[in-house]
Amino acid sequence: MKKLSSRAPTFPAELKALLAFETAQNPETERVVAEICADVQRRGDAALIEYTNRFDGTAARSIADLTLAPHDLQTAFARLPAATRDALQTAAARIENYHRRQKLESWHYTDADGTLLGQQITPLDRVGIYVPGGKAAYPSTVIMNAMPAHVAGVPEIIMVVPTPQGERNDIVLAAAYVAGVTQVFTIGGAQAVAALAYGTESIPQVDKITGPGNAYVAAAKRRVFGVVGIDMVAGPSEILIIADGSTPAEWVAMDLFSQAEHDEIAQAILIATSQTYLDAVEAAMNRLIKTMPRRAIIEASLNNRGAMILAQDLDDACAIANQIAPEHLELSVAQPEAWAKKIRHAGAIFLGAYTSESLGDYCAGPNHVLPTSRSARFSSPLGTYDFQKRSSLIQVSATGAQTLGKTASLLAHGEGLTAHARAAELRLQE
Amino acid sequence: MKKLSSRAPTFPAELKALLAFETAQNPETERVVAEICADVQRRGDAALIEYTNRFDGTAARSIADLTLAPHDLQTAFARLPAATRDALQTAAARIENYHRRQKLESWHYTDADGTLLGQQITPLDRVGIYVPGGKAAYPSTVIMNAMPAHVAGVPEIIMVVPTPQGERNDIVLAAAYVAGVTQVFTIGGAQAVAALAYGTESIPQVDKITGPGNAYVAAAKRRVFGVVGIDMVAGPSEILIIADGSTPAEWVAMDLFSQAEHDEIAQAILIATSQTYLDAVEAAMNRLIKTMPRRAIIEASLNNRGAMILAQDLDDACAIANQIAPEHLELSVAQPEAWAKKIRHAGAIFLGAYTSESLGDYCAGPNHVLPTSRSARFSSPLGTYDFQKRSSLIQVSATGAQTLGKTASLLAHGEGLTAHARAAELRLQE
Repeated sequence: MKKLSSRAPTFPAELKALLAFETAQNPETERVVAEICADVQRRGDAALIEYTNRFDGTAARSIADLTLAPHDLQTAFARLPAATRDALQTAAARIENYHRRQKLESWHYTDADGTLLGQQITPLDRVGIYVPGGKAAYPSTVIMNAMPAHVAGVPEIIMVVPTPQGERNDIVLAAAYVAGVTQVFTIGGAQAVAALAYGTESIPQVDKITGPGNAYVAAAKRRVFGVVGIDMVAGPSEILIIADGSTPAEWVAMDLFSQAEHDEIAQAILIATSQTYLDAVEAAMNRLIKTMPRRAIIEASLNNRGAMILAQDLDDACAIANQIAPEHLELSVAQPEAWAKKIRHAGAIFLGAYTSESLGDYCAGPNHVLPTSRSARFSSPLGTYDFQKRSSLIQVSATGAQTLGKTASLLAHGEGLTAHARAAELRLQE
Repeated sequence: MKKLSSRAPTFPAELKALLAFETAQNPETERVVAEICADVQRRGDAALIEYTNRFDGTAARSIADLTLAPHDLQTAFARLPAATRDALQTAAARIENYHRRQKLESWHYTDADGTLLGQQITPLDRVGIYVPGGKAAYPSTVIMNAMPAHVAGVPEIIMVVPTPQGERNDIVLAAAYVAGVTQVFTIGGAQAVAALAYGTESIPQVDKITGPGNAYVAAAKRRVFGVVGIDMVAGPSEILIIADGSTPAEWVAMDLFSQAEHDEIAQAILIATSQTYLDAVEAAMNRLIKTMPRRAIIEASLNNRGAMILAQDLDDACAIANQIAPEHLELSVAQPEAWAKKIRHAGAIFLGAYTSESLGDYCAGPNHVLPTSRSARFSSPLGTYDFQKRSSLIQVSATGAQTLGKTASLLAHGEGLTAHARAAELRLQE
């Protein structure tokens, strides 16, 4: 891991280099994705079946072969061990409870002249959840994407998940069952994104697509954005831990590992206010790394992008955190709630020694889909609000039209828009 | 205007054709914009000054020549006629009042085991407002973009507005003054977007860019998306009016004109439940068009993209409206509030005969930046919430860590993420 000190004159440049991550899109990926999207838009089911058979090694002859019935999800759930079923349901219930608090409600108010103003909230009609297949098939992803849509009141939640070589993942299907998914198609890649965005004879067009995927999926989501809504295109996952030395060093070491084990480009950074504590965490990491099944990934990630930063004090540490705007921030300090108020930019803030990031990843309640790559400066966790939308409500009274009409008329004439002005003036009573 | 009837078997196809709009991006525009963005990112102020002098016909030698002081905004305001100053301030006050109701507030709750969950709301640090120069320089746009940022508590609101041939627009600068803009640079085009997104020696990097612009500005916003947040890239403006025949035909005719006068690709559609009323509106349009200064634009827009639709009843009309998902929807009917509840997709709903869209465009209170091109299916008006963001808060108690830890451990092992599981297990007390 890199070792930095915030006192060093070179620190600003070193921090910038640490955070730099090349996100340039690959032109060849773009070209392939453009072709697949256009083909699915043009030929519908036929193209979708061809790509699926080619890329996933399946032998589907119709979309029916790529469709799971609600019953299939239920039986996948029933096949799981009781402890796993309980864990999925416990996690889903907590996540549902938290996301209910995020639900937007319609509101309105009435002016003294009888003019009503407000906002009407409605759920999206139909959404698509993309779930990766293969080794990165995570049931927690299913719950974190589908549950907010379910809580928002979206009537139809369509999940797509590729099944390479026809292999289905029971726990992923079980998660779809507990999270209220309406229908599942076993398709993936850019072709699945295109099918959801444009609709085919058998796949219904959705209004928004969320969920993670590989470079082809990400490129396809970027491409169809505008035709449908998308969540953000995620970068590598990141954790920043601020520690005052009061948390056992092993706990912090394992929290850094839990981020680093995702993949070689994940980023784990520790900021502490004492060199002694940084040394203790390093020693703990050296002991614990030997016990880690994903040791090679963890070491690559920490060597590539990890860092230990010595800060002058906790104020300094919080200022650095605001520059980093991390996806996950652990405040492993005494009185964490006071320090949280100094944090302006973070996807999720984990307060106190007992709050490991992994509790939030699975079951604490908040969403684990969070803004990466400094985008916490301007965006938020995935939430119920991402599956609702607002319509402004304006009902001007006859009296209100007299005062508003004069203002609107004057400003419209100022912009040279005579019809705008005349529309207001026609409502004026002499 | 096209004339359709919802009873016709060809209606679904005709409606689809009516709404179709080619939004393909121009590769040559993309290329030029990519070059400008890369150059501004690389050479900063020097590139920005060169492009500005070249495209805007200015003779700036430094960014200071392209910077307005707060005092310049105030004097622009002071130079306006009293009636215009009053109109701007009335509009700004109403818009501020409405947008205060949209402000998100932090919240949290505590579980029985002492675990705290919540969401912390913070404003963005710094935002950029793009305002077009030249003939489409609209003070209302300044207020509608800057006021929500101001209400959200954004400390720095940077406005950019090109001044072709050095010509400044007093009313636009005055609008910046009343809307709480912090600083104005007289730059525009892709170079201004790049400067805001990447920052230069003199232009501070912002966290989000909002506001309308030409094809180059739109392409630049798409390109920098991810580095900074953006609002949506708007398509042509649209109005849909549903009329039951109770509103004077002239009023409806003028409301259609007020949309059509924006430009030749704007779309104005009227749905009524009686042919007699459609005929009356058409007659009114034929009378009124002769008095319109922007007659050529209005006629082009209505001929290209306008339509009159005969619906079977108001339920049918609302169903058609939900398919169209219009930017602006006038419910020019008796009991509009009851019909509004049947509308699932619309940017803004104008209820009753007295609520002309133009009142909403300028001063009713809600924002006039609204989702176009059917994106009201999944997105919302620009609002205070677009300049705030959420951070999840999780503080697990020692007791909570015992139950949550077991659930997280089981699910993490199921996903093969051992460090995640171990991080939870370390917090378990035997």
